[in-house]
Amino acid sequence: MGRPRTPLLDRERITTTALELIDEKGEFSVPQMARRLGVQTGSVYHHVDGRGGVVELVRERVCAAIDSAAFDVEPWDAAMTAWARSYRAAFAAHPRAIPLLMTSPVRAPKVLEHYERAVRLLLGVGFAMAEVMTVITALENLVLGSALDLAAPETMWELPDDTTTPRLAEALAAVGTGRADAAFELALGAFIGHARALLDAKEA
Amino acid sequence: MGRPRTPLLDRERITTTALELIDEKGEFSVPQMARRLGVQTGSVYHHVDGRGGVVELVRERVCAAIDSAAFDVEPWDAAMTAWARSYRAAFAAHPRAIPLLMTSPVRAPKVLEHYERAVRLLLGVGFAMAEVMTVITALENLVLGSALDLAAPETMWELPDDTTTPRLAEALAAVGTGRADAAFELALGAFIGHARALLDAKEA
Repeated sequence: MGRPRTPLLDRERITTTALELIDEKGEFSVPQMARRLGVQTGSVYHHVDGRGGVVELVRERVCAAIDSAAFDVEPWDAAMTAWARSYRAAFAAHPRAIPLLMTSPVRAPKVLEHYERAVRLLLGVGFAMAEVMTVITALENLVLGSALDLAAPETMWELPDDTTTPRLAEALAAVGTGRADAAFELALGAFIGHARALLDAKEA
Repeated sequence: MGRPRTPLLDRERITTTALELIDEKGEFSVPQMARRLGVQTGSVYHHVDGRGGVVELVRERVCAAIDSAAFDVEPWDAAMTAWARSYRAAFAAHPRAIPLLMTSPVRAPKVLEHYERAVRLLLGVGFAMAEVMTVITALENLVLGSALDLAAPETMWELPDDTTTPRLAEALAAVGTGRADAAFELALGAFIGHARALLDAKEA
Protein backbone atom coordinates (compact mmCIF):
# COMPACT_ATOMS: atom_id res chain seq x y z
CA MET A 1 0.00 0.00 0.00
CA GLY A 2 1.69 3.24 -1.13
CA ARG A 3 0.47 6.78 -0.72
CA PRO A 4 -2.23 7.83 -3.16
CA ARG A 5 -0.63 9.11 -6.36
CA THR A 6 -2.75 12.24 -6.37
CA PRO A 7 -2.70 14.01 -3.02
CA LEU A 8 -6.14 15.03 -1.81
CA LEU A 9 -5.04 18.63 -1.45
CA ASP A 10 -2.15 20.67 -2.72
CA ARG A 11 -1.60 24.27 -3.70
CA GLU A 12 -2.22 23.54 -7.38
CA ARG A 13 -5.66 22.10 -6.70
CA ILE A 14 -6.48 24.90 -4.25
CA THR A 15 -5.53 27.49 -6.88
CA THR A 16 -7.55 25.77 -9.59
CA THR A 17 -10.62 25.61 -7.35
CA ALA A 18 -10.36 29.25 -6.27
CA LEU A 19 -10.02 30.38 -9.89
CA GLU A 20 -13.01 28.25 -10.91
CA LEU A 21 -15.12 29.92 -8.23
CA ILE A 22 -13.91 33.39 -9.26
CA ASP A 23 -14.64 32.67 -12.94
CA GLU A 24 -18.16 31.56 -11.97
CA LYS A 25 -19.07 34.02 -9.22
CA GLY A 26 -16.48 36.80 -9.27
CA GLU A 27 -15.59 35.88 -5.68
CA PHE A 28 -14.54 32.96 -3.51
CA SER A 29 -14.43 32.05 0.15
CA VAL A 30 -12.27 29.45 1.83
CA PRO A 31 -15.31 27.49 3.12
CA GLN A 32 -16.75 27.40 -0.43
CA MET A 33 -13.44 26.09 -1.72
CA ALA A 34 -13.29 23.44 0.99
CA ARG A 35 -16.81 22.23 0.13
CA ARG A 36 -15.91 21.95 -3.53
CA LEU A 37 -12.65 20.13 -2.70
CA GLY A 38 -14.49 17.80 -0.31
CA VAL A 39 -12.27 18.68 2.66
CA GLN A 40 -12.59 20.54 5.96
CA THR A 41 -12.04 24.31 5.86
CA GLY A 42 -9.15 23.89 8.30
CA SER A 43 -7.36 21.60 5.85
CA VAL A 44 -7.26 24.37 3.26
CA TYR A 45 -5.76 26.80 5.79
CA HIS A 46 -3.08 24.19 6.49
CA HIS A 47 -1.76 24.65 2.92
CA VAL A 48 -2.09 28.39 2.33
CA ASP A 49 -1.41 31.66 4.13
CA GLY A 50 -5.05 32.60 4.70
CA ARG A 51 -7.46 33.99 2.17
CA GLY A 52 -4.85 36.54 1.06
CA GLY A 53 -2.48 33.68 0.32
CA VAL A 54 -5.08 32.14 -2.01
CA VAL A 55 -5.49 35.48 -3.82
CA GLU A 56 -1.72 35.51 -4.43
CA LEU A 57 -1.78 31.94 -5.75
CA VAL A 58 -4.53 32.98 -8.16
CA ARG A 59 -2.52 36.06 -9.17
CA GLU A 60 0.52 33.89 -9.92
CA ARG A 61 -1.60 31.46 -11.95
CA VAL A 62 -3.23 34.19 -14.06
CA CYS A 63 0.05 36.07 -14.54
CA ALA A 64 1.93 32.92 -15.53
CA ALA A 65 0.31 33.37 -18.95
CA ILE A 66 2.03 36.76 -19.40
CA ASP A 67 5.02 36.36 -21.69
CA SER A 68 7.98 37.74 -19.73
CA ALA A 69 10.13 37.35 -22.86
CA ALA A 70 8.35 40.54 -23.99
CA PHE A 71 10.88 42.46 -21.87
CA ASP A 72 13.70 41.17 -24.10
CA VAL A 73 12.16 42.73 -27.22
CA GLU A 74 13.95 45.83 -28.54
CA PRO A 75 13.51 48.73 -28.61
CA TRP A 76 11.86 49.47 -25.25
CA ASP A 77 8.58 50.72 -26.71
CA ALA A 78 8.12 47.49 -28.66
CA ALA A 79 8.83 45.61 -25.40
CA MET A 80 6.16 47.57 -23.48
CA THR A 81 3.69 47.04 -26.33
CA ALA A 82 4.34 43.28 -26.39
CA TRP A 83 4.06 43.10 -22.59
CA ALA A 84 0.75 45.02 -22.63
CA ARG A 85 -0.75 42.73 -25.29
CA SER A 86 0.29 39.60 -23.46
CA TYR A 87 -0.91 41.01 -20.11
CA ARG A 88 -4.32 41.82 -21.60
CA ALA A 89 -4.68 38.33 -23.11
CA ALA A 90 -3.82 36.68 -19.78
CA PHE A 91 -6.44 38.67 -17.86
CA ALA A 92 -9.05 38.48 -20.60
CA ALA A 93 -9.10 34.72 -19.92
CA HIS A 94 -10.30 35.50 -16.35
CA PRO A 95 -12.10 38.86 -16.45
CA ARG A 96 -13.92 38.29 -13.17
CA ALA A 97 -10.57 37.99 -11.40
CA ILE A 98 -9.63 41.55 -12.41
CA PRO A 99 -11.49 43.51 -9.67
CA LEU A 100 -10.31 41.08 -6.99
CA LEU A 101 -6.67 41.22 -8.08
CA MET A 102 -6.71 45.00 -8.65
CA THR A 103 -7.93 45.63 -5.11
CA SER A 104 -5.56 43.31 -3.19
CA PRO A 105 -1.88 44.14 -2.58
CA VAL A 106 0.58 42.35 -4.85
CA ARG A 107 2.85 39.99 -2.90
CA ALA A 108 3.44 37.05 -5.27
CA PRO A 109 7.23 36.95 -5.88
CA LYS A 110 6.95 36.00 -9.55
CA VAL A 111 4.56 38.88 -10.18
CA LEU A 112 6.76 41.36 -8.31
CA GLU A 113 9.57 40.15 -10.60
CA HIS A 114 7.52 41.34 -13.63
CA TYR A 115 7.24 44.80 -12.11
CA GLU A 116 10.98 44.79 -11.36
CA ARG A 117 11.69 44.10 -15.02
CA ALA A 118 9.29 46.81 -16.19
CA VAL A 119 10.87 49.33 -13.77
CA ARG A 120 14.40 48.45 -14.95
CA LEU A 121 13.39 48.74 -18.58
CA LEU A 122 11.90 52.21 -18.11
CA LEU A 123 14.76 53.47 -15.91
CA GLY A 124 17.23 52.09 -18.45
CA VAL A 125 15.87 54.24 -21.27
CA GLY A 126 15.76 57.41 -19.20
CA PHE A 127 12.49 57.68 -17.27
CA ALA A 128 12.91 59.25 -13.84
CA MET A 129 12.59 57.11 -10.71
CA ALA A 130 9.63 59.23 -9.55
CA GLU A 131 7.64 58.64 -12.76
CA VAL A 132 8.08 54.95 -13.62
CA MET A 133 5.27 53.65 -11.38
CA THR A 134 2.93 56.26 -12.85
CA VAL A 135 3.77 55.07 -16.37
CA ILE A 136 3.32 51.42 -15.40
CA THR A 137 0.02 52.08 -13.58
CA ALA A 138 -1.39 54.07 -16.51
CA LEU A 139 -0.52 51.24 -18.90
CA GLU A 140 -2.06 48.67 -16.55
CA ASN A 141 -5.33 50.62 -16.24
CA LEU A 142 -5.64 50.67 -20.01
CA VAL A 143 -4.78 46.96 -20.24
CA LEU A 144 -7.21 45.87 -17.52
CA GLY A 145 -10.08 48.13 -18.60
CA SER A 146 -9.70 46.64 -22.03
CA ALA A 147 -9.47 43.06 -20.73
CA LEU A 148 -12.82 43.61 -18.96
CA ASP A 149 -14.26 44.94 -22.21
CA LEU A 150 -13.36 41.64 -23.92
CA ALA A 151 -15.92 39.98 -21.62
CA ALA A 152 -18.66 42.33 -22.88
CA PRO A 153 -21.47 40.92 -25.02
CA GLU A 154 -21.16 41.16 -28.82
CA THR A 155 -24.01 43.69 -28.84
CA MET A 156 -23.09 46.07 -26.03
CA TRP A 157 -25.66 48.79 -26.86
CA GLU A 158 -29.28 47.70 -27.31
CA LEU A 159 -31.34 50.47 -28.89
CA PRO A 160 -35.14 50.35 -28.98
CA ASP A 161 -36.82 50.32 -32.43
CA ASP A 162 -38.07 53.87 -31.97
CA THR A 163 -34.61 55.05 -31.03
CA THR A 164 -34.04 58.56 -29.76
CA THR A 165 -30.31 58.17 -30.40
CA PRO A 166 -30.08 58.03 -34.22
CA ARG A 167 -26.41 59.02 -34.54
CA LEU A 168 -25.41 56.37 -32.02
CA ALA A 169 -27.41 53.85 -34.09
CA GLU A 170 -25.47 54.84 -37.22
CA ALA A 171 -22.13 54.76 -35.42
CA LEU A 172 -22.87 51.27 -34.09
CA ALA A 173 -23.91 50.08 -37.54
CA ALA A 174 -20.60 51.37 -38.90
CA VAL A 175 -18.48 49.52 -36.34
CA GLY A 176 -16.84 46.44 -37.78
CA THR A 177 -16.12 43.29 -35.84
CA GLY A 178 -13.23 43.57 -33.45
CA ARG A 179 -14.40 46.79 -31.75
CA ALA A 180 -12.69 45.74 -28.50
CA ASP A 181 -9.36 44.96 -30.18
CA ALA A 182 -9.42 48.16 -32.23
CA ALA A 183 -10.12 50.25 -29.11
CA PHE A 184 -7.28 48.56 -27.19
CA GLU A 185 -4.78 49.07 -29.99
CA LEU A 186 -5.84 52.71 -30.39
CA ALA A 187 -5.34 53.45 -26.68
CA LEU A 188 -2.12 51.42 -26.50
CA GLY A 189 -0.61 53.14 -29.53
CA ALA A 190 -1.60 56.53 -28.13
CA PHE A 191 -0.04 55.79 -24.75
CA ILE A 192 3.23 54.34 -26.02
CA GLY A 193 3.56 57.21 -28.50
CA HIS A 194 3.07 59.71 -25.69
CA ALA A 195 5.64 57.94 -23.49
CA ARG A 196 8.11 58.03 -26.39
CA ALA A 197 7.51 61.75 -26.82
CA LEU A 198 8.09 62.36 -23.09
CA LEU A 199 11.42 60.59 -23.39
CA ASP A 200 12.42 62.46 -26.55
CA ALA A 201 11.64 65.74 -24.78
CA LYS A 202 14.08 64.77 -22.00
CA GLU A 203 16.82 64.04 -24.49
CA ALA A 204 16.29 67.22 -26.50
CA MET B 1 -57.25 55.90 6.26
CA GLY B 2 -55.04 57.00 3.37
CA ARG B 3 -52.41 55.04 1.53
CA PRO B 4 -49.08 54.82 3.33
CA ARG B 5 -46.99 57.87 2.47
CA THR B 6 -43.92 55.75 1.69
CA PRO B 7 -44.79 52.86 -0.60
CA LEU B 8 -43.32 49.54 0.53
CA LEU B 9 -41.65 49.06 -2.80
CA ASP B 10 -40.78 51.33 -5.70
CA ARG B 11 -38.07 51.49 -8.31
CA GLU B 12 -36.00 53.93 -6.26
CA ARG B 13 -35.86 51.58 -3.27
CA ILE B 14 -35.18 48.58 -5.52
CA THR B 15 -32.28 50.43 -7.16
CA THR B 16 -30.83 51.52 -3.82
CA THR B 17 -30.98 47.97 -2.48
CA ALA B 18 -29.39 46.44 -5.59
CA LEU B 19 -26.57 48.97 -5.51
CA GLU B 20 -26.00 48.32 -1.78
CA LEU B 21 -25.66 44.60 -2.49
CA ILE B 22 -23.30 45.24 -5.40
CA ASP B 23 -21.16 47.60 -3.30
CA GLU B 24 -20.93 44.92 -0.60
CA LYS B 25 -20.63 41.72 -2.64
CA GLY B 26 -19.93 42.71 -6.25
CA GLU B 27 -23.16 40.93 -7.24
CA PHE B 28 -26.86 40.80 -6.46
CA SER B 29 -29.78 38.47 -7.01
CA VAL B 30 -33.46 39.31 -7.02
CA PRO B 31 -34.20 36.91 -4.12
CA GLN B 32 -31.42 38.57 -2.06
CA MET B 33 -32.94 41.97 -2.80
CA ALA B 34 -36.40 40.77 -1.83
CA ARG B 35 -35.11 39.45 1.50
CA ARG B 36 -33.42 42.75 2.26
CA LEU B 37 -36.55 44.69 1.28
CA GLY B 38 -38.72 42.36 3.36
CA VAL B 39 -40.98 41.43 0.44
CA GLN B 40 -41.66 38.38 -1.72
CA THR B 41 -39.39 37.84 -4.72
CA GLY B 42 -42.45 38.05 -6.98
CA SER B 43 -43.22 41.56 -5.72
CA VAL B 44 -39.85 42.79 -6.97
CA TYR B 45 -40.49 41.32 -10.42
CA HIS B 46 -43.79 43.21 -10.45
CA HIS B 47 -41.86 46.52 -10.50
CA VAL B 48 -38.92 45.76 -12.81
CA ASP B 49 -38.21 44.08 -16.12
CA GLY B 50 -36.36 41.08 -14.70
CA ARG B 51 -32.81 41.02 -13.39
CA GLY B 52 -31.62 42.85 -16.51
CA GLY B 53 -34.06 45.63 -15.71
CA VAL B 54 -32.49 46.03 -12.28
CA VAL B 55 -29.02 46.24 -13.85
CA GLU B 56 -30.27 49.09 -16.04
CA LEU B 57 -31.74 50.92 -13.03
CA VAL B 58 -28.35 50.60 -11.33
CA ARG B 59 -26.61 51.86 -14.47
CA GLU B 60 -28.89 54.91 -14.56
CA ARG B 61 -28.28 55.62 -10.88
CA VAL B 62 -24.47 55.39 -11.17
CA CYS B 63 -24.37 57.36 -14.44
CA ALA B 64 -26.64 60.10 -13.04
CA ALA B 65 -23.50 61.40 -11.30
CA ILE B 66 -21.78 61.96 -14.67
CA ASP B 67 -21.92 65.64 -15.55
CA SER B 68 -23.54 65.79 -18.99
CA ALA B 69 -22.80 69.55 -19.11
CA ALA B 70 -19.25 68.39 -19.91
CA PHE B 71 -20.43 68.01 -23.53
CA ASP B 72 -21.12 71.75 -23.70
CA VAL B 73 -17.50 72.61 -22.90
CA GLU B 74 -15.46 73.93 -25.83
CA PRO B 75 -13.34 72.94 -27.63
CA TRP B 76 -14.23 69.27 -28.14
CA ASP B 77 -11.06 67.89 -26.56
CA ALA B 78 -11.74 69.84 -23.36
CA ALA B 79 -15.29 68.43 -23.44
CA MET B 80 -14.05 64.83 -23.77
CA THR B 81 -11.53 65.41 -20.98
CA ALA B 82 -14.21 66.84 -18.67
CA TRP B 83 -16.57 63.96 -19.51
CA ALA B 84 -13.85 61.37 -18.82
CA ARG B 85 -13.01 62.89 -15.42
CA SER B 86 -16.65 63.04 -14.38
CA TYR B 87 -17.28 59.49 -15.68
CA ARG B 88 -14.33 58.16 -13.65
CA ALA B 89 -15.50 59.91 -10.47
CA ALA B 90 -19.03 58.48 -10.84
CA PHE B 91 -17.80 54.90 -11.23
CA ALA B 92 -15.06 55.25 -8.62
CA ALA B 93 -17.89 55.68 -6.09
CA HIS B 94 -19.09 52.15 -7.01
CA PRO B 95 -16.06 50.21 -8.26
CA ARG B 96 -17.68 46.81 -7.70
CA ALA B 97 -20.43 47.76 -10.14
CA ILE B 98 -17.91 48.19 -12.97
CA PRO B 99 -17.53 44.53 -14.05
CA LEU B 100 -21.29 43.98 -13.88
CA LEU B 101 -22.13 47.09 -15.92
CA MET B 102 -19.31 46.51 -18.43
CA THR B 103 -20.56 43.01 -19.21
CA SER B 104 -24.30 43.76 -19.60
CA PRO B 105 -25.75 45.48 -22.68
CA VAL B 106 -26.58 49.16 -22.23
CA ARG B 107 -30.32 49.81 -22.58
CA ALA B 108 -31.00 52.65 -20.09
CA PRO B 109 -32.36 55.56 -22.20
CA LYS B 110 -30.56 58.27 -20.22
CA VAL B 111 -27.26 56.44 -20.61
CA LEU B 112 -27.77 55.89 -24.34
CA GLU B 113 -28.35 59.66 -24.53
CA HIS B 114 -24.81 60.19 -23.16
CA TYR B 115 -23.40 58.05 -25.94
CA GLU B 116 -25.52 59.92 -28.49
CA ARG B 117 -24.00 63.20 -27.33
CA ALA B 118 -20.45 61.80 -27.42
CA VAL B 119 -21.03 60.43 -30.95
CA ARG B 120 -22.43 63.78 -32.16
CA LEU B 121 -19.51 65.67 -30.63
CA LEU B 122 -16.91 63.49 -32.34
CA LEU B 123 -18.73 63.43 -35.70
CA GLY B 124 -19.12 67.19 -35.49
CA VAL B 125 -15.37 67.81 -35.31
CA GLY B 126 -14.56 65.44 -38.15
CA PHE B 127 -14.14 61.89 -36.88
CA ALA B 128 -15.46 59.28 -39.32
CA MET B 129 -18.66 57.37 -38.55
CA ALA B 130 -16.69 54.08 -38.57
CA GLU B 131 -14.21 55.25 -35.93
CA VAL B 132 -16.26 57.10 -33.29
CA MET B 133 -17.26 54.00 -31.29
CA THR B 134 -13.62 52.89 -31.25
CA VAL B 135 -12.56 56.27 -29.85
CA ILE B 136 -15.35 56.21 -27.23
CA THR B 137 -14.60 52.61 -26.20
CA ALA B 138 -10.88 53.28 -25.87
CA LEU B 139 -11.59 56.27 -23.64
CA GLU B 140 -14.04 54.25 -21.54
CA ASN B 141 -11.53 51.43 -21.00
CA LEU B 142 -9.02 53.92 -19.69
CA VAL B 143 -11.66 55.58 -17.48
CA LEU B 144 -13.00 52.34 -16.01
CA GLY B 145 -9.61 50.67 -15.54
CA SER B 146 -8.58 53.77 -13.65
CA ALA B 147 -11.81 53.90 -11.60
CA LEU B 148 -11.10 50.32 -10.46
CA ASP B 149 -7.57 51.38 -9.52
CA LEU B 150 -9.03 54.03 -7.18
CA ALA B 151 -10.41 51.15 -5.10
CA ALA B 152 -6.91 49.68 -4.69
CA PRO B 153 -5.26 49.74 -1.27
CA GLU B 154 -2.87 52.60 -0.44
CA THR B 155 0.04 50.13 -0.48
CA MET B 156 -0.57 48.11 -3.64
CA TRP B 157 2.81 46.35 -3.74
CA GLU B 158 3.99 44.61 -0.57
CA LEU B 159 7.66 43.72 -0.81
CA PRO B 160 9.32 41.37 1.68
CA ASP B 161 12.18 42.76 3.82
CA ASP B 162 14.75 40.70 1.91
CA THR B 163 13.40 41.95 -1.40
CA THR B 164 14.65 40.52 -4.67
CA THR B 165 13.14 43.49 -6.52
CA PRO B 166 15.33 46.42 -5.39
CA ARG B 167 14.55 48.78 -8.29
CA LEU B 168 10.82 48.29 -7.77
CA ALA B 169 11.37 49.12 -4.09
CA GLU B 170 13.13 52.37 -5.06
CA ALA B 171 10.46 53.27 -7.62
CA LEU B 172 7.72 52.72 -5.06
CA ALA B 173 9.56 54.82 -2.48
CA ALA B 174 9.80 57.62 -5.08
CA VAL B 175 6.06 57.63 -5.84
CA GLY B 176 4.25 60.50 -4.21
CA THR B 177 0.69 60.38 -3.00
CA GLY B 178 -1.88 60.47 -5.77
CA ARG B 179 -0.35 57.66 -7.86
CA ALA B 180 -3.82 56.71 -9.15
CA ASP B 181 -4.74 60.27 -10.14
CA ALA B 182 -1.36 60.90 -11.78
CA ALA B 183 -1.66 57.67 -13.80
CA PHE B 184 -5.18 58.55 -14.95
CA GLU B 185 -4.20 62.06 -16.02
CA LEU B 186 -1.13 60.72 -17.85
CA ALA B 187 -3.19 58.20 -19.84
CA LEU B 188 -6.03 60.65 -20.43
CA GLY B 189 -3.69 63.37 -21.69
CA ALA B 190 -1.94 60.86 -23.94
CA PHE B 191 -5.21 59.64 -25.41
CA ILE B 192 -6.79 63.03 -26.02
CA GLY B 193 -3.54 64.30 -27.54
CA HIS B 194 -3.46 61.31 -29.89
CA ALA B 195 -7.10 61.85 -30.90
CA ARG B 196 -6.34 65.53 -31.61
CA ALA B 197 -3.37 64.49 -33.77
CA LEU B 198 -5.56 62.03 -35.72
CA LEU B 199 -7.97 64.85 -36.45
CA ASP B 200 -5.22 67.29 -37.42
CA ALA B 201 -3.86 64.69 -39.85
CA LYS B 202 -7.30 64.51 -41.53
CA GLU B 203 -7.42 68.28 -41.95
CA ALA B 204 -3.90 68.53 -43.33
